[in-house]
Amino acid sequence: MKPLRECTVAVVGLGLMGGSLAGALHGSCRSVIGVARRPETAARAERLHLVDHGTTDEKLVLPRADVVILATPVRTIIRQLERIPSLLSEGCLLMDLGSTKAEIVAAMAQLPPYIHPLGGHPMCGKESSGIEAADPTLYHDRTFILTPLARTPAEAINLGRSIVAAVGARPLILDPIRQDRLAATLSHLPYLLACALILTADATTSRDPAAWEIVASGFRDTTRVAGSDVTMMLDILLTNRKAVLEAASAFRTVFDELVGLTGDASEAPLRASLRASRKERRRMFP
Amino acid sequence: MKPLRECTVAVVGLGLMGGSLAGALHGSCRSVIGVARRPETAARAERLHLVDHGTTDEKLVLPRADVVILATPVRTIIRQLERIPSLLSEGCLLMDLGSTKAEIVAAMAQLPPYIHPLGGHPMCGKESSGIEAADPTLYHDRTFILTPLARTPAEAINLGRSIVAAVGARPLILDPIRQDRLAATLSHLPYLLACALILTADATTSRDPAAWEIVASGFRDTTRVAGSDVTMMLDILLTNRKAVLEAASAFRTVFDELVGLTGDASEAPLRASLRASRKERRRMFP
Repeated sequence: MKPLRECTVAVVGLGLMGGSLAGALHGSCRSVIGVARRPETAARAERLHLVDHGTTDEKLVLPRADVVILATPVRTIIRQLERIPSLLSEGCLLMDLGSTKAEIVAAMAQLPPYIHPLGGHPMCGKESSGIEAADPTLYHDRTFILTPLARTPAEAINLGRSIVAAVGARPLILDPIRQDRLAATLSHLPYLLACALILTADATTSRDPAAWEIVASGFRDTTRVAGSDVTMMLDILLTNRKAVLEAASAFRTVFDELVGLTGDASEAPLRASLRASRKERRRMFP
Repeated sequence: MKPLRECTVAVVGLGLMGGSLAGALHGSCRSVIGVARRPETAARAERLHLVDHGTTDEKLVLPRADVVILATPVRTIIRQLERIPSLLSEGCLLMDLGSTKAEIVAAMAQLPPYIHPLGGHPMCGKESSGIEAADPTLYHDRTFILTPLARTPAEAINLGRSIVAAVGARPLILDPIRQDRLAATLSHLPYLLACALILTADATTSRDPAAWEIVASGFRDTTRVAGSDVTMMLDILLTNRKAVLEAASAFRTVFDELVGLTGDASEAPLRASLRASRKERRRMFP
């Protein structure tokens, strides 16, 4: 396979993640082509210098790409994996940025043998979405999970690593099932909690006009991820349903226990739990 | 009552909140005295120029203060309200920064008539605590709730408003019961959720060494408040127990429903709920 600097890279989907990745790859490869659904998005990506060339015509550009990166919602990726293989050139590296990996990797296993698939999941994002929110520094210093298939050749994995390094991230090779289980607790569950907290506040305090005047930074931070793109998150939840439901159930047990301690006459066990969570939070984010 | 610029202000408790307030008041009043439990803290506050004079001797300094602001955990404030009145000069404004107000205001109602009490709750904070974390800009642009008592004279409320303005915050006069109910949903519930999320992650994913490598900004933000000072939060939960338990119960109903929708075969209701929470989040934080 060619080194990255000689590769033509096509990024399919120019939202926050794809637009940011395209912008970050600029200068590290031969050229970056952006494929969008809407002509305005393709034109905007060009105008923002995130891509060398923006288009809506995948048939025109995918055949000459050495690397194709799917940056669409998870279930769109799965549909694309059925549709686009016939457009790809022999030896093409086909990556994706989907947040759940088991179903995508299963679909990748069905690809024709002349394509080299490599699952990807960068651990970054923002609550804003769309090309307007794209930021080439989004990937800096973040972990970028790679889930190779048994069929993925070492040189394709190495090219994937070069892409990760080019956008400033750190590669982490992980099994797709294991990554989905971890992401369920560390990413998808926090999203559901944030949504439920917003809906609770909406139902119980929003009739009080003072509510939004007293909202402090704690509430803002705790609910930030509830602003994430809905189609992206819906696809994530539904393609990782089992692990998400398990994480939610584990959370409920812990939450019920903590609430029970808050109602208890004896305060020592509550203090011990709050101390344990503070200690663990500080260990995780020193 | 004297105008603020002629007042000697004593801040009792030089942690994050008290230290920051003292630093922010500097220059707006005659002098700022800091009272700490430990001599090192008093000395540190002086060295950081947060106070004109730092001491551990409340008996020495409180009698000459025109304004006394209690910046300790809620249950310490309640104990101080029993202990310090005999030390205060006639006409003294006695404020506090406690996050729950009903129990504090009830204790303030018992103060001798020559003291003017005024409850306070600034809507700001950080996950770090102690004088080292003090930041005179902490109160900038934040809402600062004031809960006057029926006995609090208008001029004492006005002096309280001047203090709020001097630290860069916006005063909001609120009934203590109403403030506690709002704070339960918008501040104390998010804290319990953050703690429970940390403990869930600790129990389910922490044995996997990859877990902390893939933790993204969503998890970090959602759990930020779990790093708050434990004694402060314990006092808050236990002095606002009824409202916190009600908020937790309302949350559980909403969360269970959302998790139920995640498991459902039909995806339209889940999409509608995620859309509603995103819309509400964006309305609250445009």
